[in-house]
Formats: sequence, structure tokens, C-alpha cells
Amino acid sequence: MKYSLAEIAKIAGARLVGKDADVSGIATIASATGDDLVFVEDSKLLPDAVDSGAGAVVAGNFAEGVQSPKPLLIARNPRLAFARAAAVLVPGRRYGPGVHSSAILHHSVRLGKAVAIQPHAVLTEGVAVGDHTRIGPGTAVGADARIGSDCNIAANVTIYPGVSIGNNVIIHSGAVIGADGFGYVRDEQTGKYEKFPQIGTVVIEDDVEIGANANIDRGALGATIIRRGTKLDNMVHVAHNCEIGEDVVIAAQTGISGSCVIEKRAIIAGQVGIADHVRIEEGVILGAQCGVPTKKIIRGKGILFWGTPARPIKEYLKELAVLARLAKRG
Amino acid sequence: MKYSLAEIAKIAGARLVGKDADVSGIATIASATGDDLVFVEDSKLLPDAVDSGAGAVVAGNFAEGVQSPKPLLIARNPRLAFARAAAVLVPGRRYGPGVHSSAILHHSVRLGKAVAIQPHAVLTEGVAVGDHTRIGPGTAVGADARIGSDCNIAANVTIYPGVSIGNNVIIHSGAVIGADGFGYVRDEQTGKYEKFPQIGTVVIEDDVEIGANANIDRGALGATIIRRGTKLDNMVHVAHNCEIGEDVVIAAQTGISGSCVIEKRAIIAGQVGIADHVRIEEGVILGAQCGVPTKKIIRGKGILFWGTPARPIKEYLKELAVLARLAKRG
Amino acid sequence: MKYSLAEIAKIAGARLVGKDADVSGIATIASATGDDLVFVEDSKLLPDAVDSGAGAVVAGNFAEGVQSPKPLLIARNPRLAFARAAAVLVPGRRYGPGVHSSAILHHSVRLGKAVAIQPHAVLTEGVAVGDHTRIGPGTAVGADARIGSDCNIAANVTIYPGVSIGNNVIIHSGAVIGADGFGYVRDEQTGKYEKFPQIGTVVIEDDVEIGANANIDRGALGATIIRRGTKLDNMVHVAHNCEIGEDVVIAAQTGISGSCVIEKRAIIAGQVGIADHVRIEEGVILGAQCGVPTKKIIRGKGILFWGTPARPIKEYLKELAVLARLAKRG
Repeated sequence: MKYSLAEIAKIAGARLVGKDADVSGIATIASATGDDLVFVEDSKLLPDAVDSGAGAVVAGNFAEGVQSPKPLLIARNPRLAFARAAAVLVPGRRYGPGVHSSAILHHSVRLGKAVAIQPHAVLTEGVAVGDHTRIGPGTAVGADARIGSDCNIAANVTIYPGVSIGNNVIIHSGAVIGADGFGYVRDEQTGKYEKFPQIGTVVIEDDVEIGANANIDRGALGATIIRRGTKLDNMVHVAHNCEIGEDVVIAAQTGISGSCVIEKRAIIAGQVGIADHVRIEEGVILGAQCGVPTKKIIRGKGILFWGTPARPIKEYLKELAVLARLAKRG
Repeated sequence: MKYSLAEIAKIAGARLVGKDADVSGIATIASATGDDLVFVEDSKLLPDAVDSGAGAVVAGNFAEGVQSPKPLLIARNPRLAFARAAAVLVPGRRYGPGVHSSAILHHSVRLGKAVAIQPHAVLTEGVAVGDHTRIGPGTAVGADARIGSDCNIAANVTIYPGVSIGNNVIIHSGAVIGADGFGYVRDEQTGKYEKFPQIGTVVIEDDVEIGANANIDRGALGATIIRRGTKLDNMVHVAHNCEIGEDVVIAAQTGISGSCVIEKRAIIAGQVGIADHVRIEEGVILGAQCGVPTKKIIRGKGILFWGTPARPIKEYLKELAVLARLAKRG
Repeated sequence: MKYSLAEIAKIAGARLVGKDADVSGIATIASATGDDLVFVEDSKLLPDAVDSGAGAVVAGNFAEGVQSPKPLLIARNPRLAFARAAAVLVPGRRYGPGVHSSAILHHSVRLGKAVAIQPHAVLTEGVAVGDHTRIGPGTAVGADARIGSDCNIAANVTIYPGVSIGNNVIIHSGAVIGADGFGYVRDEQTGKYEKFPQIGTVVIEDDVEIGANANIDRGALGATIIRRGTKLDNMVHVAHNCEIGEDVVIAAQTGISGSCVIEKRAIIAGQVGIADHVRIEEGVILGAQCGVPTKKIIRGKGILFWGTPARPIKEYLKELAVLARLAKRG
């Protein structure tokens, strides 16, 4: 799609400096052609962007007053402005609506308008799918699961029975939503483990994105909840009965044990391990690979924790420094 | 299903105190209605349970002699009693037997009685499936694999050729059983890696549960073995030629390298890393995120190890304390 | 297939000592029969191998001059010789060529000679598949993806649109190639995350092997690249815009954040975490569970790094020793 820079400026919340023109794509500075928009966050890269083949440059306030032969779109947050421009210029693959003849739908399935049910998808008894939602190839949706509108459920996803998914949710391939939680009771007499009931559900609210091969287990009796706007990276594990607040980001391979609460706007890096019944309070930042022991409460908006057991990074770095010094002394 | 409390008491190994009545479900204290059974492990929660909407309460010996308007089921281990009650009250989804018309079965496949082969499942040449086993949607079973009776193999599972699975095994979605082990030989002259043969198999014994997106690789020449009653959580990785003993539990995202032996009743927390040729002896407990270096033997029934390299938790905590003290001093 | 030991010696780069004979398989010393080849790397195990039921023994130079009733194949690197012998004796499952009637292929799909497109595979618009390649059951290949010749793409793999895969590539089940990178921009005003465009691609070169449930995300604007001969184990995560060089090995559950460069011949153990924009230089070895902080450059051919933050193992071990000593003193 072609857009004028004036239109893009409006969408992106930027100010156009220079001559209006049309753009139709986005690119890196190295690969851009005249139809592409590029962006710079770092003023040092502005000359490269201006000299590139791009049609226009999104830049931060540092570009104010800079002489440029190319039109500039100046924004306080050029990355955000570029993301918004990209959302219209390259709006993501559209899937032709329709139910592929190889998909298997129980007669009780209810479909919204313009859904795309792709080859070999399986929609079991009682499933409901909202308008404009895509269910990718080979994806299996268990009985009575509900999926909202404008969702993109990729190929080979598994959604267990009874799971509830909001609107505008993206789930990448291989993700498994609603498998049984890991709950057993050991019979001390026999030494054997018996299954604790895992009959709860999973609730995923609007605007959530879930990475490839991520797992969100159902609650044992209640629900596991992922609130609005939260983003989970690949292979994140969310155990039974967790509640993840709004606008949380969790990077790849992090694992969250049962019955944790992660409050809104927490930022959790990759490979973090969180034991059961932990509370991560609003806006806390957990550094990569750190570990939070059972029942801990981690508090402090914007404070970065690191290490196992997780502690404020200042403490952790001081400990590392002291240890290195002692080791050098021998 | 409706059961009388007297029946439930018998099944659960509990003693009924109060009037008999029927129950048909289980619930949390907060959500229970009169048809539901609830449970309390902690005496402090008993009043809440007794005041709840539940029809009856499973409780520990601490409830002995307590005045309750509600019938009580008193058991030494109320969690276990509740789990056993739940196993009859909410017996898990039953899958109507039959082979779905979209499933692809080689003519040589042998099926037991009342199996459920669901949409788009693929059963290759020589596969055998026991009575009452479910093969979920999109699950692919490779040539000559054998699956026992009363198994629940969920959607989108992959079972490679030749794998052997016992009875009453649960495998969650996305799990991959029998992929090639990670074995290569480097040619020093060319610097290239060549594949070491991975022609062994995987043997999974009875009563095993395997979490979503878990991986159990086949042995290089011999077998990778998971013994009776062992439970693996989501995304657990078991490499080639490991042998995991009976009644072991391994929490999410733990990885076990090639040729390890995990003896029976070991308890392994999440995100643990175990290098190759390690032996974890009977009843050892490995704390979350700990690491066991190559060829180590970890010994001590009931002893908890932590850190990398894994050491008894007392030592580890003492080290942490000493380090924190030194850092404070500066 | 039967081969004479003379033929095998030639293929394996070994020297036959003793009488020629035919072999048709490989085995462990414990299970070998007269048709099998076995191998020993450790001279202490040579007597066991010679006394075993095997038809012949591949051994290192230590076997020179040893009296043996069994023919020996002597090689400088007996593991490599055995791997090469195995490659012809047990050449891996062959899949009968043909397109299964249940596979869904868009009319624009181009197939090479003797491809095996297995049940319920889905090949979308514009996909190209080279000669002798297998696409396993339930595998979904997105629009315009290109897969080379002699590839083995197992069951339930997902390849996103536009991904490019070379020749002789193995991808195990559950792997997801080309999902969106984990990139968002936070709007400080609303606190919400907006998706940064993820419109790049993935390029996988020849002779790569990718483990079960591994993930390789597409580049945001450019490409994520896995170079020739590199081997990734199960559940490895490669984020957007990484470039992994030639002949790298990465063990299970390691995660590599966005925009990292891993140079050729690096060796990365399991559960390693690498933050964004890191460079791991040629031939570096990263020990299990170590962590590399953002933007770090790790340098030193053949040097082993351990711990978080990753440091040369000598330093790390010294620190551990000092700490243990202090803790003992109290």
C-alpha cells in the first residue's frame, strides 16, 4: 500500500520536514530503496540514513534543524513512530477468509465473519471463533474453547478444551495452551505419585502475544490468567494458577511455577526461573537467568534484580566484585 | 457422576463425620456449590471451608472433634484423599471411541478395543495401539511404534519410529518422543561435524506423564528409558541414553544430557541442568536452576542440593551469606 | 545392506587387520551379533569388544599389534570411522517418494524429483521443495518458503512464510522456523507495548541440523542466519537477526537473544543464555548454564568460559574455591 508521508506523519505521531512523497514499505538503512521508510534512534546514524536509498527517514528530535535532502519524519520516540508507520505500510499477512475443505469442524462450532480456518485445523465440539480470526494449518482447538476476533493463531498450535482467548491475540506455532498443570500427591505408603485434579482453565485477555512453543498450563481448580497486552516470548512456561498482569513482557525460556502473581508492567528477561507462590510486584525488572525462591515477594518499580536468589543488581554486582578481588589475591 | 460421601470416604481412605449426602464435583473454597467437595490442608482454613458453599469438606486430622454443620471427610493426607475423590468425581475427559475418517492409518496398524483415533492423526506402518487409548488430533506416530492401553496422547504429539510406550501413559501436546540424540563427531581435518548414528530407541514404562513440548531423544545405539510412574513437566529435555528411574519427578525446563542415570524417587526442580554421564542417586533432591557437572555422582536420600556446581544447600547458603557479609563491609 | 570390511575400511578411513568378512549393522558391545560392527575409543574396553559377539571392531591406534581373533578396523579417530561406517550400514530411514493424498499443496508449489510429502503436510502458495526431500506428517510450510534437496523435515514442524532452507538439512519435530521476533515498543504515555515490525526472514544454509522444538525467529527487517554445518539441539532459541557461523554446535535449551553474532566453530553447551548484541568469537567454548551480558564480546579460540557473567573457567573456579574456603571458616 502506498501512503503519503503526510498521512504517515499523522498515523505515526511525527512531524514531516521536507517535501511530501509516497512510501510503500520499510527497510534497514543498508537495504532501503526509494519506496521505503527507514528510522534512526541514534543521531550518529542520521547521516547514513540520509545518504541511504530510502525515500524518507523517521528520526528523533535530534534531527531538528538538520539539513537533509530527504524528507524527515521527526518524533519524540522514533522507534514507536516507525512501528506505527510499519503497522500500516506492512500490515501483516492477510489470510483469505474461508474454511478449508480439509479442516474438521464439529457441527456445533460457531464461526464469526470472515474467519480463515486453514488446512487440517481441527475445531472440536462447542468451539467458538470470532470475526476475522485465523486458525492456522494443523492447529487443534479442544472442546468448548472460545477464541475472540482478530486473532492470529498460527500453524500447529494446540488449545486444550475450555480455554478462553480474547480479541487481537497472536499465538505462534507450537504453543500449547491449557495442558494439565504439574500437580501430584505422593502416597507415602507406596511412594507413588497420584494426579491432583487439573480441571481449571486458562483465560487469555485481549492484545496478548504468545511465542512459539510456549506453554500455559490450566489451573488446577481455578484459572491461569494472562491479562491484556502482555507479551510472552518463545518457550516461556506459565504453570497452573498463575496470574500475569497487564502489559508484562517475559522473554524467552523463562519459567514461572504454580500460583505466582506477576503484577502489571513487570519486565522479565530470558531464562528467569520463578518458584511457586511468588509475587513480582508492579514494574519490577528481573534480569536474565535470575531465580526467585518460593513464596518471595519482589518489590520496587523500575528496580533491576539479578542472580539466584534474585537481589537488587547493585548488591549482586558488589558481591561479584568482592569475590573477584579475593580470588585475585589468591 | 453423583457419589455418596460414604462411597467417597471409602475411595479416598477418609472417615466420614456427619450426615451422608451426595456430591458430584470438586471446587475451590471460593467457588464451591452444594454439589462440590473442597479440601483443607491447613487448619487455619477450616472455618472458611466449613462456611463455604461446599457440600462437604475433606480435611486433615486437625479437624477431629471440630463442630461442623457440614459433613467432613477426615484423612491423614487430605490432599491425597481429595485427589482420589476427584479421580472418580471428575474422571477426565472421555473420548468417544472410533477412528476419525480424516486419520491416516497404514493397513498394517493394529488397534485395541475402544481406541479413539482423532482427526488428522497419522499412524504409520506397523504401529500398535492398546485398548482405550486416545491418539489426539494431528498426532503423528512413526513406523513400528507401540503404544499401550489406557494412554492419553494429546494433540500434535510426535512419536518417532520404533518408540515403545507402556500403559496408562499421558503425553501432552507438542511433546516429541524419539528424535535423534545430539551426537556428532568432528573431523579435525575439515572442522566439520559428522552425525554419530542415532539408531537406538525410547522406552517409556507404565503410568508416566510427559508435559507439553517435552523432548525425549532416542538412544544412539541403545535405549533412553523412562521408568514406571515418573512425571516430567513441560519442556523437560531428556537426551540420548538416559535412564530415569521409577517415581521420579522433574519440573519444567530441566535438561538432562546424554547417558545420565537418575535413580528412583529423585526430585528435580525446574530449570536444572545435568551434564552428561551424571548419576543422581535414589531420593536426591535438586533445587531449581542448579547445575551438575559431567560425570558427577550426587548422593543422599532426601538431601537438597543447590547452585552450580550443585552442593548441599547448607553449604550453598553459607557461601551466599559469607559473600553478602563481605560485600556489605565493602 | 551388507558391506565387506574392506569396503568399510575404505569408507571409514580405517585399516583392516585380520580376515575380511561382511557386516550389515552396528551395535553396542553388549548387544552385538556377528553381523555387527562395534567400536572402542578407550583401550581398556578393547578386550570386551574383541570378546563380544560382534563381527568386527573399529578401534584406535592403541589396537596396533594387538592379537585379536576378530578383524579390527584401526583408525586414528575410531569414533569418526565408526560414524562413517554407520552412515552406509544404517543409512537412515528412507521415505518412499510421492505426495500423500491427504497432503494439501497449493497449485503453485514446485516439487523436485523423488520428494516425499507425507500425510497432512501443508505446502502453501509459492513453496519450492528440492529433490529427495521429505516433508513429514503434519508439517506446515508457509507461503514462498524454499526448502533445498536431500532435507529431512520431520513431523509437525512449522516453517513460516518466506523462510529459506538449504540442502541436506535435518529439522526435527516441533521445531518452528521463522516465527516473529520478540520486538515491541512501549508507548510511555499509555504504558502499552506496540509490535515492532517483524518482516525479515530466516536463512538456513546447507548441512544444518535443528533439534526438536527448537525456535529460530525471523529477522525484524533483515534475516536471521544459520550458516553451513551448524548443529542446534532441542529447544534452542535463536532470536531475531542473529547470525550463527559455520560449524557451530549449540546444546539443548540454550537461548540466544536478538542481533547476536556467533562466529564459526564456537561450541556452546546447554542452558546457556546470551543477551542481545553479543559477539561470541571464533572457537570460543561456553560452559553449561553460563550467561553472557548484553553487547559483550567473548574472545579466545578454545577457551572455556563459565558462570554468569561468563568468565574464563580458571577465574570462575578460583572464585568458587575462595568462597568455599571462606564459608568453611565461617
